[in-house]
Amino acid sequence: MRPSGRAPDQMRTLSFEPGFTKHAEGSCLVSFGDTRVLVTASLEEKVPPFLRGKGQGWVTAEYGMLPRATHTRGAREAAKGKQSGRTQEIQRLIGRSLRAVTDLQLLGERQIVLDCDVIQADGGTRTAAISGAWVALRLAVDGTMGKLSADPIRTQVAAVSCGFHQDTAVLDLDYLEDSTAGSDGNFVLTADGAIVEAQLTAEGATFDEEGLLRLLRLARIGCGDIFAAQLKACGR
Amino acid sequence: MRPSGRAPDQMRTLSFEPGFTKHAEGSCLVSFGDTRVLVTASLEEKVPPFLRGKGQGWVTAEYGMLPRATHTRGAREAAKGKQSGRTQEIQRLIGRSLRAVTDLQLLGERQIVLDCDVIQADGGTRTAAISGAWVALRLAVDGTMGKLSADPIRTQVAAVSCGFHQDTAVLDLDYLEDSTAGSDGNFVLTADGAIVEAQLTAEGATFDEEGLLRLLRLARIGCGDIFAAQLKACGR
Amino acid sequence: MRPSGRAPDQMRTLSFEPGFTKHAEGSCLVSFGDTRVLVTASLEEKVPPFLRGKGQGWVTAEYGMLPRATHTRGAREAAKGKQSGRTQEIQRLIGRSLRAVTDLQLLGERQIVLDCDVIQADGGTRTAAISGAWVALRLAVDGTMGKLSADPIRTQVAAVSCGFHQDTAVLDLDYLEDSTAGSDGNFVLTADGAIVEAQLTAEGATFDEEGLLRLLRLARIGCGDIFAAQLKACGR
Amino acid sequence: MRPSGRAPDQMRTLSFEPGFTKHAEGSCLVSFGDTRVLVTASLEEKVPPFLRGKGQGWVTAEYGMLPRATHTRGAREAAKGKQSGRTQEIQRLIGRSLRAVTDLQLLGERQIVLDCDVIQADGGTRTAAISGAWVALRLAVDGTMGKLSADPIRTQVAAVSCGFHQDTAVLDLDYLEDSTAGSDGNFVLTADGAIVEAQLTAEGATFDEEGLLRLLRLARIGCGDIFAAQLKACGR
Amino acid sequence: MRPSGRAPDQMRTLSFEPGFTKHAEGSCLVSFGDTRVLVTASLEEKVPPFLRGKGQGWVTAEYGMLPRATHTRGAREAAKGKQSGRTQEIQRLIGRSLRAVTDLQLLGERQIVLDCDVIQADGGTRTAAISGAWVALRLAVDGTMGKLSADPIRTQVAAVSCGFHQDTAVLDLDYLEDSTAGSDGNFVLTADGAIVEAQLTAEGATFDEEGLLRLLRLARIGCGDIFAAQLKACGR
Amino acid sequence: MRPSGRAPDQMRTLSFEPGFTKHAEGSCLVSFGDTRVLVTASLEEKVPPFLRGKGQGWVTAEYGMLPRATHTRGAREAAKGKQSGRTQEIQRLIGRSLRAVTDLQLLGERQIVLDCDVIQADGGTRTAAISGAWVALRLAVDGTMGKLSADPIRTQVAAVSCGFHQDTAVLDLDYLEDSTAGSDGNFVLTADGAIVEAQLTAEGATFDEEGLLRLLRLARIGCGDIFAAQLKACGR
Repeated sequence: MRPSGRAPDQMRTLSFEPGFTKHAEGSCLVSFGDTRVLVTASLEEKVPPFLRGKGQGWVTAEYGMLPRATHTRGAREAAKGKQSGRTQEIQRLIGRSLRAVTDLQLLGERQIVLDCDVIQADGGTRTAAISGAWVALRLAVDGTMGKLSADPIRTQVAAVSCGFHQDTAVLDLDYLEDSTAGSDGNFVLTADGAIVEAQLTAEGATFDEEGLLRLLRLARIGCGDIFAAQLKACGR
Repeated sequence: MRPSGRAPDQMRTLSFEPGFTKHAEGSCLVSFGDTRVLVTASLEEKVPPFLRGKGQGWVTAEYGMLPRATHTRGAREAAKGKQSGRTQEIQRLIGRSLRAVTDLQLLGERQIVLDCDVIQADGGTRTAAISGAWVALRLAVDGTMGKLSADPIRTQVAAVSCGFHQDTAVLDLDYLEDSTAGSDGNFVLTADGAIVEAQLTAEGATFDEEGLLRLLRLARIGCGDIFAAQLKACGR
Repeated sequence: MRPSGRAPDQMRTLSFEPGFTKHAEGSCLVSFGDTRVLVTASLEEKVPPFLRGKGQGWVTAEYGMLPRATHTRGAREAAKGKQSGRTQEIQRLIGRSLRAVTDLQLLGERQIVLDCDVIQADGGTRTAAISGAWVALRLAVDGTMGKLSADPIRTQVAAVSCGFHQDTAVLDLDYLEDSTAGSDGNFVLTADGAIVEAQLTAEGATFDEEGLLRLLRLARIGCGDIFAAQLKACGR
Repeated sequence: MRPSGRAPDQMRTLSFEPGFTKHAEGSCLVSFGDTRVLVTASLEEKVPPFLRGKGQGWVTAEYGMLPRATHTRGAREAAKGKQSGRTQEIQRLIGRSLRAVTDLQLLGERQIVLDCDVIQADGGTRTAAISGAWVALRLAVDGTMGKLSADPIRTQVAAVSCGFHQDTAVLDLDYLEDSTAGSDGNFVLTADGAIVEAQLTAEGATFDEEGLLRLLRLARIGCGDIFAAQLKACGR
Repeated sequence: MRPSGRAPDQMRTLSFEPGFTKHAEGSCLVSFGDTRVLVTASLEEKVPPFLRGKGQGWVTAEYGMLPRATHTRGAREAAKGKQSGRTQEIQRLIGRSLRAVTDLQLLGERQIVLDCDVIQADGGTRTAAISGAWVALRLAVDGTMGKLSADPIRTQVAAVSCGFHQDTAVLDLDYLEDSTAGSDGNFVLTADGAIVEAQLTAEGATFDEEGLLRLLRLARIGCGDIFAAQLKACGR
Repeated sequence: MRPSGRAPDQMRTLSFEPGFTKHAEGSCLVSFGDTRVLVTASLEEKVPPFLRGKGQGWVTAEYGMLPRATHTRGAREAAKGKQSGRTQEIQRLIGRSLRAVTDLQLLGERQIVLDCDVIQADGGTRTAAISGAWVALRLAVDGTMGKLSADPIRTQVAAVSCGFHQDTAVLDLDYLEDSTAGSDGNFVLTADGAIVEAQLTAEGATFDEEGLLRLLRLARIGCGDIFAAQLKACGR
């Protein structure tokens, strides 16, 4: 039995609130249950130094957590003077995931920065961030289609966590499940069925091929729900 | 005529949404028009090193702005590795303002940290932060009264900006007014009529005693509105 | 009775020693009693990036305190690896104050950096710094008038602190008064009577309009003395 | 055809040189072909703050790359003043992998730090580091068994990369293959057949379940070779 | 002929102004011609962590240069966020030099920090700093003799630079000579004739034993003058 | 009697292993007994900003110590976020030493960076680094002679430490001697007999002219051995 009473293959309540802030070219407040992440997409008419003059664009991400997004207050990274290894790992993952569905040539010499700031954390902040980032990116690109020759977004991308809770494979772990899971992982999938990233970690209990495939099957179910919600949020 | 069509002594629409996040002992999403700041109050059963063993508590604040809270994206302070002088100036001001209405002896050896994170900026983020921080502080103290011998909050505190827009003294400047004001300032006032802080700066045009008093009179009007809204948000 | 035996509206002994160092385009060792600040003005034939090609100049300030300028040794900011919030707040204030009396167009594409280093502290280091910075700036501009079409310095600027010591409004607080004042503030005024900055803070006791005006009246008296001493130091 | 002429399921020449340095409790120079990593295991009779007094030990890792380990010189992280996101991601992975096979209770209140410094890079530095770290850890524990009640190392751990090179699944990618692989990943496995970590990333081409399983099968082959070489290096 | 017209074995005008600041336990403004360094000695009733409980004291130094002590303004180290290699090299040298004449056992569990801040630079700032630091240290120890069983200062220490200017060995190089010297060095000597430090560097022209001994002979002459001036400044 | 049983004027076993890594233009693993330093020379077709457009090249060095190169593990400088004063002092010394024998005009607008990383420390890491750096530099220049009009390396440079161990002057101190030496120093000499650097420090016991000359005589003996070994390593 899951602490939340959910079925093993049941997502938490999903919500994508597009246009949550007014300045960004695209924005979205995404909720996976009590996990809430504000994503903004900022379109800049320039690219990072390593891409200058190469005729292509870039999509990158930054991730942060408000100090009291969590049960006990964490130190503010700006005050500590550096981003943690965890923060950097997550923002690199978000960037790679979104670039996997973007045609950087079609974007032209432009950069889109996806800022993912966790307002409230209850497990799965990185998967919510990736899923919400696609909505913010979609909205930002929609608003700039006048400058583009074709749509640079090839398909949808979404992410969800899965893991073993008391030996049962469950979908979309909340904080309680995440902190006690024997092993878990995050899957980043595209709407056309491909795997973009799979990251599995054994914490306590290790796993095998069979376990890996069971988690992946759950991830496909969860991402299906997310894809539908993303489209609806973008009015598609 | 103000760009927003407001009367010179008219505040923007005020909103205090208490309990915006679930983990913090107190929280509030405060809006002064399009300026929105999320404030959380975290109660910690410890004090900073310089107060250990002195039998009193502490109230302090940290301030941050999400990278795309503004018209154009600003660099993330956590990524730059340091807080700007502006950020530090503001968080020191918020801390002083809230300590001015708190009896630190009555708080006991506890610290309350007020995290003020700007979700969307349209002028007056520091005054919204101070005003919202009082609500978050009030809620956090309400929730911990069982541990306290008496209420450590002496009175309400609120803040508002005033300035000269096209030679007219106006209340609660939005971004458009703020960026063109000849001179302006921020006032921090208590509900019993005292001035806690007054900070006036001439940018372009200097001012005199008469001007200073006119701005202060507007500030008293604006803070009156804020005090009423704060009480309502706290259910008092 | 003030600890120093001074009358409430009496400044400490003022001294401006121009040309204290030989390399700077302008320099001044300013003393407000035992508070001593060395100010140098460095003229650079370049402007900060945000002003390049705009045909105007810039005036900025940096502030530091020697580790043993104070009663007990403070950590060296260069060794700690960052400037404190207090340091940044003060150097921003000095910069704004001097820019308020400078015509940046007339300065041309040049920058003047005012370095204010506290040799010995006894209260009022920021007001001494601003007052001395005007002398260093005046001397630096005098020495470069051959390159300028007209004098970019419109008028004098000076600063002084005022506050309530045992319920009496007093002028130019020394360290003993400053550390026990109920509320105090700093005023930056120009020689033609305008207010450039007013920063009042209640520490312990709050204040009201009447108190604010009494402090401002004292500040006008003190700045009058400073203006006279500045002119004499510059040989005008 | 692989650039190196290896068969798809063929590892590069493996070499573990135990005792490469004299001061460390355990050390090993590991080579996966031209990739060479020096690993030292330092045993410290203390634990990190979060574990003090809990009666258990800790195993952690740090990773670095000599500036000219690569084709073109990279900036020295000590001179830049921070470790890159990539460095932090890798050292977190190494630490998790070794902890997965260590009984931290049996280790007692001791910490073992695994320093993995890349002398020469040719693809697969993180997998070589994990595999060599097990040898250094084993040697350090062997040397301290007199203080321990039982062996805290449960089994062997090894890591290897796999990926698709020109649509063929290949084992242990070198730099040439790694930089052109459509998708690849790193597997961390134990000698008793469990998966500790699986990290797969699509760069360019995405993959599916079938691909994932093929890579995992290759990883099992490669880790078998590594396990044998580890034992031999430890004289077991 | 030296640019200053001095004889090869002639020091610049020496001046030690004791008690330059009022808060420090010992202080001295030392001048070697136009090079002026303010040294303060701060006595602290504690020692650094590595000496706690060992029954001995410590003497250490910090060095800084005001941004406009030099011909062109240098960046402020506190603003850059780190001390340069040159700064660290110099402050380590000053600390070693003063420890060489101090009996740290007799000092007891106390630390004396020597802050050496260059007000104006014209060559030889480190040698002036060492020579002035001895005066500040002497004064600080004189003022604390009531707490000490015996005088911990064994003898005097002084430093001077020497070098080859146009093939002539000259004493106490000023900036003009220093910047064109073929090779030069700094000698730290004690009043009883011993060498504490000798640092010689060939910049452009190398040197040999004969040259080394000629420079050392000059250094003995210069330090003789300094020792006499130090004693006079301390009223001995 | 020396702990190692060596004669006073006897070097440790010297070894220069050229071409230790494959990517660098020049590389060398140098051993002075148990002290082992890996030096790589990286040739870059650019110069630092202060030399751009001046038609000359630059030679510079960076120094690092692997965390467990020493008896007890030291903190990793990249993780601490800064290089120690000792590290900076050493890398500045290495750079100066190599520039002393290089004609920077003949090098053209190129930079050679010498990375000196200590694999294992047993005293004399900086002298081994300088001596090994010459070999790496020589190899890098040999490999690029096709682009140069003439050989920019004027002569060989080597370094060795000397000091007083139990009142006997000894050559090439190992860690045991170094940590107990009354006074010691490092000499950097060229193959044509000139002194490039001489740095002597009294730790405990001071020294005099006679002692200085005795140490220098030993240094000439030691550098003779090193020069021969360098040539052999370079195949000359």
